[in-house]
Amino acid sequence: MADMAEVGQPFSLVELQQAFRNRGMPLEALRYDLTPTGLHYLLIHFDIPDLDERDHRLVVGGNVARPMELSVADLRAMPAQTIPVTLECAGNGRALMEPRAMTQPWLLEAIGTAEWTGTPLSGVLEAAGVAPGTAELVFTGADHGVQGDVEHDYQRALTVEEARRPEVMLVYEMNGRPLEPQHGYPLRLLAPGWYGMTSVKWLARIDAVTDPFEGYQQAVAYRFQNHEDEQGDPVSRIRIRALMIPPGVPDFPDRARLLDAGPVTLRGRAWCGTSSVDRVEVGIDGDWQPAELGPPVGAWAWRSWSYDWAATVGSHQLACRATDADGNVQPPEVKWNLQGMANNLIQTIDITVR
Amino acid sequence: MADMAEVGQPFSLVELQQAFRNRGMPLEALRYDLTPTGLHYLLIHFDIPDLDERDHRLVVGGNVARPMELSVADLRAMPAQTIPVTLECAGNGRALMEPRAMTQPWLLEAIGTAEWTGTPLSGVLEAAGVAPGTAELVFTGADHGVQGDVEHDYQRALTVEEARRPEVMLVYEMNGRPLEPQHGYPLRLLAPGWYGMTSVKWLARIDAVTDPFEGYQQAVAYRFQNHEDEQGDPVSRIRIRALMIPPGVPDFPDRARLLDAGPVTLRGRAWCGTSSVDRVEVGIDGDWQPAELGPPVGAWAWRSWSYDWAATVGSHQLACRATDADGNVQPPEVKWNLQGMANNLIQTIDITVR
Repeated sequence: MADMAEVGQPFSLVELQQAFRNRGMPLEALRYDLTPTGLHYLLIHFDIPDLDERDHRLVVGGNVARPMELSVADLRAMPAQTIPVTLECAGNGRALMEPRAMTQPWLLEAIGTAEWTGTPLSGVLEAAGVAPGTAELVFTGADHGVQGDVEHDYQRALTVEEARRPEVMLVYEMNGRPLEPQHGYPLRLLAPGWYGMTSVKWLARIDAVTDPFEGYQQAVAYRFQNHEDEQGDPVSRIRIRALMIPPGVPDFPDRARLLDAGPVTLRGRAWCGTSSVDRVEVGIDGDWQPAELGPPVGAWAWRSWSYDWAATVGSHQLACRATDADGNVQPPEVKWNLQGMANNLIQTIDITVR
Repeated sequence: MADMAEVGQPFSLVELQQAFRNRGMPLEALRYDLTPTGLHYLLIHFDIPDLDERDHRLVVGGNVARPMELSVADLRAMPAQTIPVTLECAGNGRALMEPRAMTQPWLLEAIGTAEWTGTPLSGVLEAAGVAPGTAELVFTGADHGVQGDVEHDYQRALTVEEARRPEVMLVYEMNGRPLEPQHGYPLRLLAPGWYGMTSVKWLARIDAVTDPFEGYQQAVAYRFQNHEDEQGDPVSRIRIRALMIPPGVPDFPDRARLLDAGPVTLRGRAWCGTSSVDRVEVGIDGDWQPAELGPPVGAWAWRSWSYDWAATVGSHQLACRATDADGNVQPPEVKWNLQGMANNLIQTIDITVR
């Protein structure tokens, strides 16, 4: 289980620099149905590009009948939809693996839920006329840099079938306002249900291609590798996970928790990108009991859970675990992989009740 | 100088947990006059409190003629002012000291500039009638926890003279919108020119006291200590500092920089809470040249600077340093102190030009 006392230390400067650039959501923010924009997690590979909505263009090309160039105003004039979506970084939980990849060292906080406004991608694909023989759509961001000795624009692909799903959107607003720069201003892809790497920010191009895309962020990064010599399966949809708001008050800086004895309602959220959340259980010192589930914030967003506990004086270990509608349950032990991907290990919280 | 290659490694889990909670501003965001809300730095000692503007009250008491309880609506009905203010955490640069305090391990990114709206504190003090003999005003936040084995609400004090300065405000909006929870919703103090610890978030009480305040965050934390047995001088106003946007493109994850040869305009910001920014110089491999200064964004906010460089192929070290109107210049070597406070060391950037 995700016991912080067992996290492999120490951390490197590379990891620390990433931790400052790539913001986590403090877990008490699980209290909000919609994460305030500045508390939503961020994972940015390169620099935040300097773009302006007024002159930004989305180029749609490749294997399409009608190549086009669209302004954000053009996209705003198309049918709009607003949906709450829970996003999670594929690397969430990486720092709980040992050994771990020397990159963004997420503990558990790479999550967030926002209300996103945009136009369904399917409408743009229809307007451009995706031609027969198209295998995938490749999405290119304006962010550029070097990773694994390969200089590239950030790019990810989806199959035509996935890209045409009604919830996949071209997004220009988050929580009712234009995207902030770090969330992809002025335009991003949003692929609900998928780990965040798929929702390409600062979207500049969509290209229909006839062969599967083999770019760095698709074929090398975001894979379940056991060792460097295998390519491994691709990371795709978000695995079932529940998290708990740490109860009581914290110590600064070590985040140890102190709680008054008596009745307390433990609260958190659970989500899943492959099906739906079926059950959440709370573990008190290893004794698992069912939590009460609230309604989902949306079809692609987390749902709240709560559990009434009579806290007794002493040291306790709290935990929560979710099960999805397909019967997948969060694992008690890390399923290690080289890149530290999709670690949905059960969260634990050590707490002192006084 | 602030050479990342010389940062004392490794880092601890305590530091990493803080780095995720307490967000830095990615340095490319120096391009914005006003930092987008979600990119502004954060330093939160305890948990973000769960407050509601509708029932929050500010209690004004202690040595005053007319104790009062004010709603945010009451404060919104008082004279309003909006000013851009640059805030910096007193611990910015801590991780560049060695040995360093085991707390929030800031490198250089604990900064941000926002436009804050509120009512001058002086009006509230006048309404309450600060009585003769008052030494200080104590500001109490709704955030609560344990630090240094002392359980307390976060509290800081200002002298009556400082508290009455016209730029000191009770703030309810940031960048034209209600404060987000992590920035003090629904009400915070703002003390322009001071390091951030003074601008108490989630403000719940103001008490006029006749003796200097000796609370933990005033008398123990935020001091320039050389060793644990001395109290040290208090940390107060923001020291002169300039920072540069790292030019070129980054490597992920190590943030090494790669730049194309040829003309490039180096850009950044400089600020100072004790007087004003008088001069910024750019160092290219140790050769210092004056940068061009833009106008300040406001009396309490940073100003931009730029320098045109003809980048030549090879490895270079870039640097920038600012001088304030009193002749204080950023130091080339760390001025160490136990808590890692107010380290305004000169920034350096190693870059490969191709």
